[in-house]
Formats: sequence, C-alpha cells, structure tokens
Amino acid sequence: MSEQKIYEKLIRTFPDYPKKGINFIDWMPVLGSPEALQVLTEDLANLVKGRHFTKLAALETRGYLIGLPLAKLLGLGFVPIRKKGKLPGPCMRQEYALEYGTDAIEIQEDAITSSDSVLVVDDLLATGGTMGAANKMIARKTNDIVDLFFIELEDLKGSKSLEYPYFSLIKMKEK
Amino acid sequence: MSEQKIYEKLIRTFPDYPKKGINFIDWMPVLGSPEALQVLTEDLANLVKGRHFTKLAALETRGYLIGLPLAKLLGLGFVPIRKKGKLPGPCMRQEYALEYGTDAIEIQEDAITSSDSVLVVDDLLATGGTMGAANKMIARKTNDIVDLFFIELEDLKGSKSLEYPYFSLIKMKEK
Repeated sequence: MSEQKIYEKLIRTFPDYPKKGINFIDWMPVLGSPEALQVLTEDLANLVKGRHFTKLAALETRGYLIGLPLAKLLGLGFVPIRKKGKLPGPCMRQEYALEYGTDAIEIQEDAITSSDSVLVVDDLLATGGTMGAANKMIARKTNDIVDLFFIELEDLKGSKSLEYPYFSLIKMKEK
Repeated sequence: MSEQKIYEKLIRTFPDYPKKGINFIDWMPVLGSPEALQVLTEDLANLVKGRHFTKLAALETRGYLIGLPLAKLLGLGFVPIRKKGKLPGPCMRQEYALEYGTDAIEIQEDAITSSDSVLVVDDLLATGGTMGAANKMIARKTNDIVDLFFIELEDLKGSKSLEYPYFSLIKMKEK
C-alpha cells in the first residue's frame, strides 16, 4: 500500500449527510492548506500530461475550486459552467435528470469555439449526470473533450454514462 | 486618465439583466485570459500589501473565482463561505435580508479560529448585505477582519454597511 498523499489525509467523511445512508465526502480542508492544494493540483495535471487543451471548463460550485488552480498551472483560460439563470448574455443550456425532476446548466455562447480542446473538471464523479450534461452542451461546439475528477465514487459506476475519455485521481466508495 | 488595465478591458455590461433597469456587470471573460487573471490577482494583492493575514475567506460563488487565485498568491489557506445547507459538519450560520425575505450563509466551525486574521473576498460590493453577514459570522471567532472587492458599485453606497476596513480595486456605477 502506498503512502497517503498530503491532500488524502485532509479528506473526511460525514455519515448520514445530507441524508441517512449517504457518506458526505468533505475535501474542503484541502483548500485550507496551500501546500496540499498545490500537490493536488500538480497530481491532477500529471493525469492529463501530454494532452493538449485550449480551455478548462469547470462545474459549479466545487468544480471551480479544483479547476481554477489547475487552469492556472496549465496556463488555460477558465470557463465557468453555471446553474441556469446565473450567466448573462447569450448562453447554451442543457437539462439533466435529478432524482425527482430536472435541472439545467448553462455556459456562455462565446466562451467556447469549434477550435477548442476542452478539459472539463469537477470534484466528484458520482452518477455522472451533471458531467454528462456538460459534455453534451460543450459538444455542440467541439467534440474535443476530456473529463477530469478529483474523486470517483466507484460503486456508483458514473463513468459508464461518460462518452468521452475521463480521468479520476482517487477512488472512494459512497457507502 | 490612466490607461485601462488588461482585465478592465474584458469587463462588459448587459443592460436590463436579470431585470429591467439593472446593468449586469460581467467579468467572466477575465477568467478566460490567464494573463488578465494574473494581473488582476497581483493588483488585488497590492491593495492589501503590508497587512498580515492567516486565512482568506470568500463568498459563494463568484467570490471564489477572485479569492482562490489570490489565496494562492498570498500563500493563505482558503475558506469557502457557502449558502446554507451546502457544508457538512458543525457550521456557523448568519442570516441576512434580501429584497423580499431572508437568506443565510454558513462557514465550517473549524475553518477559522480566534487567532486568525481573515481577508474576506467577494467580486462585487453592491449593497454590502452578504459581506456584512460574513463579517458578523467571522467576528464570532475573530475581529481581525479586512474586506476586499474587485468591483465597487459606488452609487449603492454599500461600504456604509461594512464595519471593518475595506478595499475595492475599481469603482463602477450600477445605473
């Protein structure tokens, strides 16, 4: 067994949050340590080493906290994907299914072009519903897409719903 | 008149969004330019030069996009202040008034201690309601607080509601 990384030691779980039977994985303490965040960012960059991107898009809200330092390290422009109704001006919108009903995400029309190679970042791969919607939305402009996650919840098998190459840094179980 | 900075050139306004009579100030294109974001971050750091902080706390969501690169530059741990119900574990909560009704923000109990000096960051100073609530919440732990904004909407006079030293990088008008 390999030694735990500095950022792994800072991940904690809260049982039965936000509801019974769910273990909430809380990596916020990583943000509190500049050293841990730096190592995490470098390890994420290593996962996609050798690939070329022109933009980094990230999912609201925790995806921003992973994606922004990574965009800086890779020298990429950062594109926020937001929940519907938060971005002004012409936007693309993509709906996705929730346990009950639907929600939607948006991205500004001019933020991505057909010549872009996009690294799409989120903190957690659970069912893959939101990332799938992000991919579908970005694919209206370009099919050059790679997905990247900090943590993958393996038992939820969310990677099956992703139609593009994906990488995840660490694997955990939800239950 | 001094020359416009690279990030100022990337700020645009959308009239009548989200409702008639409001000019929405959109600085998202700054994030799309690594150079512009770097200059913005350096200029924000210069505003608080000579002051000592131990933590940088930022307000959800756009405050994170300003605060995270600044925390990195200043070598500070980053503390997310979130809308209620998003953070697991023991949290402090502070309500604040909206045009109709109230909302609340939260911060994890263990994220700030009595020995911390906290730089609190948001993108926009409008009425100052959310920042006032953030200050009040943090003040339960420490009174060593400084507020920092990218853009101040002068005509809304939000600075009058801030009880701690504050800095803003550029001044604009909402109307």
